[in-house]
This record gives sequence, C-alpha cells and structure tokens, in this order.
Amino acid sequence: MINNFPEASAAEIDEVMQRSLLAFHQYKNISSEDRALFLETIANEIEFLGDALIDQAAAETNLPAARLIGERGRTTSQLRMFAAMLREGSWVEASIDTAIPDKNPPKPDLRKLLIPLGPVVVFGASNFPFAYSTAGGDTASALAVGCPVVVKAHPAHAKTSQMVFEAIETAIAKVKTPKYVFQHLHGSSFETGKLIVQHDATAAVGFTGSFAGGKALYDYAAARKNPIPVFSEMGSINPVVLLPDTLKINAASVAKQYAASITLGMGQFCTNPGLLIAVECDGLNSFIETLSDEIEKVIPANMLHAGIHSAYYKKMHDALAQKGVALIKQSSAKTEQLQALPTVATVSGEIFLQNSLLHEEVFGPYSLLVVCKNVDELIEVWKSVRGQLTTSLMGTDKDFTDHHSLIQVAETIAGRIVFNNVPTGVEVCPSMMHGGPFPASTDSRFSAVGIDSVKRWVRPVCYQNCPQQLLPVELQNDNPKNIWRLLNNNWTRDNVK
Amino acid sequence: MINNFPEASAAEIDEVMQRSLLAFHQYKNISSEDRALFLETIANEIEFLGDALIDQAAAETNLPAARLIGERGRTTSQLRMFAAMLREGSWVEASIDTAIPDKNPPKPDLRKLLIPLGPVVVFGASNFPFAYSTAGGDTASALAVGCPVVVKAHPAHAKTSQMVFEAIETAIAKVKTPKYVFQHLHGSSFETGKLIVQHDATAAVGFTGSFAGGKALYDYAAARKNPIPVFSEMGSINPVVLLPDTLKINAASVAKQYAASITLGMGQFCTNPGLLIAVECDGLNSFIETLSDEIEKVIPANMLHAGIHSAYYKKMHDALAQKGVALIKQSSAKTEQLQALPTVATVSGEIFLQNSLLHEEVFGPYSLLVVCKNVDELIEVWKSVRGQLTTSLMGTDKDFTDHHSLIQVAETIAGRIVFNNVPTGVEVCPSMMHGGPFPASTDSRFSAVGIDSVKRWVRPVCYQNCPQQLLPVELQNDNPKNIWRLLNNNWTRDNVK
Repeated sequence: MINNFPEASAAEIDEVMQRSLLAFHQYKNISSEDRALFLETIANEIEFLGDALIDQAAAETNLPAARLIGERGRTTSQLRMFAAMLREGSWVEASIDTAIPDKNPPKPDLRKLLIPLGPVVVFGASNFPFAYSTAGGDTASALAVGCPVVVKAHPAHAKTSQMVFEAIETAIAKVKTPKYVFQHLHGSSFETGKLIVQHDATAAVGFTGSFAGGKALYDYAAARKNPIPVFSEMGSINPVVLLPDTLKINAASVAKQYAASITLGMGQFCTNPGLLIAVECDGLNSFIETLSDEIEKVIPANMLHAGIHSAYYKKMHDALAQKGVALIKQSSAKTEQLQALPTVATVSGEIFLQNSLLHEEVFGPYSLLVVCKNVDELIEVWKSVRGQLTTSLMGTDKDFTDHHSLIQVAETIAGRIVFNNVPTGVEVCPSMMHGGPFPASTDSRFSAVGIDSVKRWVRPVCYQNCPQQLLPVELQNDNPKNIWRLLNNNWTRDNVK
Repeated sequence: MINNFPEASAAEIDEVMQRSLLAFHQYKNISSEDRALFLETIANEIEFLGDALIDQAAAETNLPAARLIGERGRTTSQLRMFAAMLREGSWVEASIDTAIPDKNPPKPDLRKLLIPLGPVVVFGASNFPFAYSTAGGDTASALAVGCPVVVKAHPAHAKTSQMVFEAIETAIAKVKTPKYVFQHLHGSSFETGKLIVQHDATAAVGFTGSFAGGKALYDYAAARKNPIPVFSEMGSINPVVLLPDTLKINAASVAKQYAASITLGMGQFCTNPGLLIAVECDGLNSFIETLSDEIEKVIPANMLHAGIHSAYYKKMHDALAQKGVALIKQSSAKTEQLQALPTVATVSGEIFLQNSLLHEEVFGPYSLLVVCKNVDELIEVWKSVRGQLTTSLMGTDKDFTDHHSLIQVAETIAGRIVFNNVPTGVEVCPSMMHGGPFPASTDSRFSAVGIDSVKRWVRPVCYQNCPQQLLPVELQNDNPKNIWRLLNNNWTRDNVK
C-alpha cells in the first residue's frame, strides 16, 4: 500500500495500457484546437483545486507553500505553453517536396510531418510534485502531440498525484477528449515499473529521478522484444569551474551566489551545484571563507521525505569520511525531524581523481570544492565526472581569454553551459536544454524542458503521391494554419503553387 | 581474412577509436565551409576513380554497371547535398531567448544549437556498395555535422570499400581536415562489431542490413556502461494494400507496376514489396494472371553473393512449403551461378495470420499475395507484420472514400506511405523518411535518408548568459550566416536587436 493506494496489479496495468492504446487511436485524430483546449482546461482545473492542493503537497513533500505555489504556476504555464504551440502549429515540422515528373527517374511528391508515437508512460520526480510529476512537463508535452499518458504516481506524494489526476479527469469530462487519454497508477516497486514499461502497448517512457530508477527503466525497455525509447533524466552534480581572475576580484560575491544555489530548496534540485573546481590561486581562501560564513547562516529546512533525508546523511558522511576530504563548514544549527545541515567540503584534485565515490551525486545541500594544482588537472577533474545536465564557468573576460579552450570541454560534458550564473533555476523556453550526455540522461539528443521536449514523443511519417484530400491539413497545398514549412528545401509560410 | 584483409584485432580497433576521438576534438571546430569542401572533395575523388571503382564493385556484388553508376551518382549527390546544407547553415536549429532582467526571477539569456555527438561507427549494407556503405548516407551525414567516422567495411565488397576509403584519404590530404577523421576497419564477425560498438570512444552507430545484425548492435550498445544511440535500418516486407475498385478498373496496370517493383535489382532492396494484401473481389483474378505473366518474363540475374543467393532459396522454399501457400508463378528460365528465379505465391488471410513464418522478409525477388475475406481481416493481416519502412495503398478516389480509415492504419505501421506508386526508389530529399517503427529500424524517430538524417548524430547544447564573443557564430546577435533562427519563439533571419 502506498498511502492507502494499493500497488497496481499486473491485471490492472494490462487493463490501463490496453485502454491507453484504444484512446490513442481516437486522441491522435482530434484537432490541435481541441488538444489545446484540453491542456488549458487541465491548467484551469489544477488552479481550481486551490489551497487544498498546495496543502496536500506540503504535507507530503515538506516543501514550503511559496515554493509549491511557484511550482504550480510553472506547471500550469507549461500546459498553456504547449497549448500555444499547438495553436501556432509549426511544431509538426511539415516538409514538402513537390513532384518533378520529368526527372529521370521521376521525382514523386513527398510530404512529411511528425506524428505521435503512442501511449507514453511517465514516472514523476519526488522533488517536483507538480512540474515534473503528474501534470508536469513530460505529461504536457506528450498530451500536446497526441500521445495518451499513463502516470505512475511517485509514492512520496501519491495523494497529491491523485488530486492532480482527478483534476485531469474533470478536464477530460469537460472537453472533447477520449476518456482514457490520461490514466494513473500507483506503485513503488521496480517490478511494477518493469510491467508498465514492458507492456506491449507502451510506446515511450519519460522519467525524472535517480540513476538507479532511470537506468532500470532504460534496461527494461531495451530488453523488450520491440525496444522503445526511454528518456530518463537522472540528475547530475553540475560541476562549476571557478577561474582565477574572478576569484581574485569577485571571490566574496561568487561565494555568496553559490552558497545560495547549493542550499536552495535544501539542495534538492537535479541542477544543484554539487562540485566546485578551482586551481590554487589568490582569492581562493577568501572564496572559502565567505562560502563557509554563508553556509553557516542557512536555516535548515525539512527534506522531502525520510528516505531522501537518510540518504543525504549517509552519502554526505561517506564522502566526508574519504581520505583527504576536509570539511569546510557544516551549519551548526540544531536540526529536528527531516531537517538537513548544509555542508561544504574540500579535496585535492589528485585525490578526487583517484576516488570515484567522490564523483557521485550527494542529493541535498552539499557541495565539494576540488582544488587543483593547475588547469590541466582541473580539466581532468572536470572530465572525470562524465555527462552532466549543466556545467558552469565563473570567470572574467580575462579568464575567458586566458582559458578559451575550456568552453570546448564544457560542451563535451553538459547539455547546458552557464556563464557567471548558477545552474539552479531551469527557465521554460524554447532555447532551454534540460538533459545531457549519459548519465545525466539516457539520450543526450533530447530535452525534458521547453517546446522541443515534444520531440521525444513523435516520429516522422512521409506521404508519397498522396491525394490532397487525404493529406493531414498541415501538408495540404493551401496552408490554412499558416505554419512554417520546408517547401522544396526553403522555409516559408507560402502555399504550394 | 576477408578478401585478403585480416579481421581487425582488438588492439587495432582500440587504436582506431582512440584516434577517432582525438580527431573529433579537432574536426568539430573546423568551419562549415571547410567541412563542405571536404565532402565535395570526397565526391570528386570518388568520381576520379572512374571505371575502376565500378568494375571492382561489379566484380564483388554482381550488380550491373548501369545500376552501380546510378548508385555512385546518388552517393556523390548526397555528399554535395550535405555540403549545401552546411553552407546554408540553418540545420543547427539555432534558438535564442533573450534575457528579461526584470522578470521575477530574472530570465537569463539562453541560446541553443546542435553540436556533434562524437565518433560515429558505420556498418554498411551489402546491397548498396556505395550509397549505404563506405561514403554513403550515414558517413556523409555524420561527417557533415562534425562527427569523425569509422566504417566497418562490408565483407561482401571489402575491396570496393577499401577503394572508397582510399579516395577519402586522398580527400583528407587535399583539404584542411584532421588525418583520422575517417578510418576503415575490416571484419566479418559479430565479435568485431561488438568490440567497435562497445569501445568507450564510440558515440553512436549507424547500420543498414539484416535484423540479426542490426539488433545485435543495438543490444551491444544498450549493454554498455554508458549506452549510446544506434540507428539500425533492418529492412522490411513493405506491405501493399490493393483496394477493390482499383483492382476492378486497373488490375493489369497495377500488376505490371508491381511485377517490375518486386523484381527490380533482383528484389534486393529494403523497400522491396514482399507482401501484397487484397480482399477477394472482381479483378483479383485478372491481377493474378497479369502478375504471373509478367513474373514469367523477367530475365534472372545474379544475386549479390552466394550467402544471399542461398538464403533466398532457403527462405523462399520454406515459405512455399507452408500449409496453404500456393505458388502463383516462378519464372521457368534456366538459371546459372547466383541467378535467382522471381517467385510470387498466395495464401489466405486466415492462414497468414496463423503462421508468423510468412511474416518474415524473404530477401530477393519474392512476394506473397494474401487474399482476405473482408476489410477487417485485411487490416488484421496488415497490422500483424509490425513496423515497416513503407506501406503502399493502391486505390481509386472511390477506394479512398470507401476506406478512409486505412490511412490511419498505414500511419501506425510505416515510416512512409505510398499512394498508387511502388515503394522501391528512395528519393533523397528533405521530405523523405527512411526508417520506421521497430523492427524496420531501432528508433522510429529518425531517418537514414535526407538532410534530417543528421539528427541522429547531434545533440542540443544551451549557452546561458554567454558573452557574445564566446558564442558559436550561429548564436551571436549578428547573424553573419543569415540562417533561420527561432528568436524569442519566432522564426526569423533577423539579427538580435
């Protein structure tokens, strides 16, 4: 039982996935306008839940109301963003090559656009009960493009998830949408995840959470008779490179900025900066001093749940116990319940390179400062941590002139490169990339955030010599939706003449 | 030994892949213009090989010179097409969201574009010694976007592959390109493929060939500690639905069209129509008669090699030996050496559905006509064959009005839907989709043909608050390349103001 909800049985999973497949064949054919209205109605219904939803989420996650209200806003904004994307319409990447009958051999008329893959299964995150969960980005992007969604509720906020599910059910009843276009399952075992991912009707999977969970789902999908795409976003330690000139000039301000980022939301973000890397230089001591002072000041708050709280202490203590690791500061505040003490430590580049345990994410308000002998060692340390969601460079113009090649290194490591800023805070906009080389995500070619996140759930289909009246509206000669199309290899909104 | 070339050793594979990774870090930084010149120089050098290349390929593949000359033209055209794509420049999908400092929290400046994944390993096809092999579409698309390439030569045309490799080496020497940007390995064992795919430096894999080969490479990649993308195009039986009104009116012409498509190039195309499906109706007998007459007339030619020739006879005889399968016609011509007899057979829908052996590809000039009791059974037969590269619909306007829902079925099955045309002949243009739901390919979201085929080898990277002078030229405020960019969610070629 998960908060009074029984673990989904194999029979229930089968029934839900079969229904999802049936819903797919109806849902993919409803108009973009109807899908847009559906997404907006979901946003409205979530808002109609009012304080009850915030209270429930706060009770289950320990997150403060202000943060949850902000996250709810992000969630409803995302739903409305995808509705706007549907109304604009160019997301289908329509491409038209008109026939050239007198070519040898004759060139046929070819027209292509993106269509939905089928039922998408979403595994939400414990740390974002709204924006990366039940009606979060994965769900919104999949519903937008015509895929029905089955959410496996996160057991850490199962009641919150149930409330959001019921809001979506209300939305389904209010608009022209097939009944089973969104369904909800409870479960906490890997076996349940395996049954859902390996069900024949499942076409793709979205996951946000731990490496262990995300990689298991990837393996289940790859082991299917017909493998399916899995996009798992599995977190990151988000290395930050502190360059010498900025440490000389801006040590205190950089330290304050990063102390805030490390402890924001008790460090429970996949973009939390868990690793700081610098070369021994003037200003480094000053940086450490300010960082220490700032960490001391942070008021501890509860972590999401007991499991995350105990994992934080275990992993943090394991890291601190490693040879050569020295504590910089742990807040000395008294803690109770699930409160966590922000902690920063330091280690030499040489020892860091020898000890891969130090490369692992410590999920929580923790960061490790690696002090390197020189830039070559810094690069080695930086590269040793493998794929990342983000990496940050703190530097002056002089730093970037002196160390221009570092940007190349950053590109090989991360999906997003942050300059003189903190990685926490993931703006929802078309240019955002939230994903990265393995193990940050299972496929670095896709993003979990922004309108491009729909690309995970669609595939191109080409119509050869198709009669006009049988073509999807986006590919007909007239361009009634006035969308951007690649017409004979030129971008245009013109009709086909 | 493969045609005098020794099987690559583990040490050789390691050396080649290490060099490829080093070449990547240089190659990804050379200009688009230099990459375009490189691709064009490869095309020129292939042409400079003249008849010697055609003769070598003909000797190894038994393909007629005219076909090989055509395929060489396709290959060099593809290289030049990607050069043109690089000069135009919009393929990087540049996206810019400018900062909104007074938003709460402030919106940073975010800019995104596509960058290359790293070394790409290409496994070419036996049936296309040029266009899907050494300097074929996979290689050209990967080199275009900045990925070095390692080709594992197909053992059936190892000498041809070696000649093309040497032409590329000449091109490398002539233009500003790192020496090891293209390398070549020989081998014929699965173990060699496994070593290459699982090498730490390998970033992605392209394959064209059999299901057994393509699926094995997918499994090797998925089993890595850090899984990598594999795009395997694994062939297809390309079901063709013959609708009643067109059979009533056009039986003879449709039969002639399809007899030619089934036997084109001795049926050795992944788009060969291996399955015809019809409902019992007026005109079907007339279709069968003409098909039979046309198949009888085909002059047998040699198949690619002894392995394919014997596999054709084995699979074709196995299919004919199944209960309920009746021969329509096998050409009665005398055959010698590796010549193959074109063959068509028929079976009822009911029996087809019960016998999955009949769903398998018989690679060669063979097609099976499935005669169904009604449209429901036809749909069942059609869906039973799983993912396909193509599916075709032969019908009149009346047919498409009467059976409109069939297009929906076609979309679930295939990457390309052909109307009143044959699936053989894959036009190289932006609107082509060559790929399809599993098992036609390992990832239905990508195409092996056309400019979009580059999407297999690239990933987005986002630059947050990046100083102008450090940004890739495509993301700078000025738009010196005059490319299409998504600027604050609007497509434009304008500068950022």
